[in-house]
Amino acid sequence: MKKLVSACIALSLGAGAGYATTVLAQQKPEVLVKQRQAAMTLIGKYFGPLGAMAQGKAPYDAAVAARNAGYLNALSEMPWDGFHASTKDTTEKHRALPAIYENEAKFKEASERFRTAVTKLQPAAKDEAAFKAAAGEVAKTCGACHNDFRAK
Amino acid sequence: MKKLVSACIALSLGAGAGYATTVLAQQKPEVLVKQRQAAMTLIGKYFGPLGAMAQGKAPYDAAVAARNAGYLNALSEMPWDGFHASTKDTTEKHRALPAIYENEAKFKEASERFRTAVTKLQPAAKDEAAFKAAAGEVAKTCGACHNDFRAK
Repeated sequence: MKKLVSACIALSLGAGAGYATTVLAQQKPEVLVKQRQAAMTLIGKYFGPLGAMAQGKAPYDAAVAARNAGYLNALSEMPWDGFHASTKDTTEKHRALPAIYENEAKFKEASERFRTAVTKLQPAAKDEAAFKAAAGEVAKTCGACHNDFRAK
Repeated sequence: MKKLVSACIALSLGAGAGYATTVLAQQKPEVLVKQRQAAMTLIGKYFGPLGAMAQGKAPYDAAVAARNAGYLNALSEMPWDGFHASTKDTTEKHRALPAIYENEAKFKEASERFRTAVTKLQPAAKDEAAFKAAAGEVAKTCGACHNDFRAK
């Protein structure tokens, strides 16, 4: 059984496979970049429709709002450990600015504003106006952080 | 306010930006590929340490087990809409086999086995032996699906 599980894990995981051998040790910079970009990609996937609803570009759909808000609760915790100083000199293509590592407290604060704004989505999902306002707040925290810490 | 939100959303989203304009319509194949790969990358990130614990390669950590199980509950729902028939002919690099679209029922069944196995992680996280067994079951469903539907 152990052998089978081992074989399956080796077979199953792509970027994650590093964890199976290095366990909870620090990942390689290129893996960290890939993982944080994956989190941002999915935040885009699930926030996109909410932003469209907030702007009136899509009809309000309470079920999608609630589902995506739940996903975003999890996803909004995922990018941050990927912004490790070891990734500063990676040759991997990315847009993270050195400012992230030069002012870690400010970056952390910006990421926590986003996190906090995201947690307000799900409780608001039953009320269209409240939800749209909450989604607008999330969008502002995305934009503020990207403005300071992401290359144009 | 609406204008600001709009500007922030445009500024904020990468791959997700397609949603803001096309709203809930079908995404471009290359975006779907990127999004499903992002989900798999994060499933790898958060299942990796659980697999290592199940194999005894890492000490059991109930807090990490519970947290990652929660993340995986969300992440395990995210890849599937990305396996849309429109992605069959994309030039994007990927390993999804045509078998996915030739036998959609079988692919769906395999993905649902994985989903079901993942949902059993969190309730088991307080009991080391139960959790390791549950993680082993998840690994088997990863491997089975990759074996049939992912290029070697």
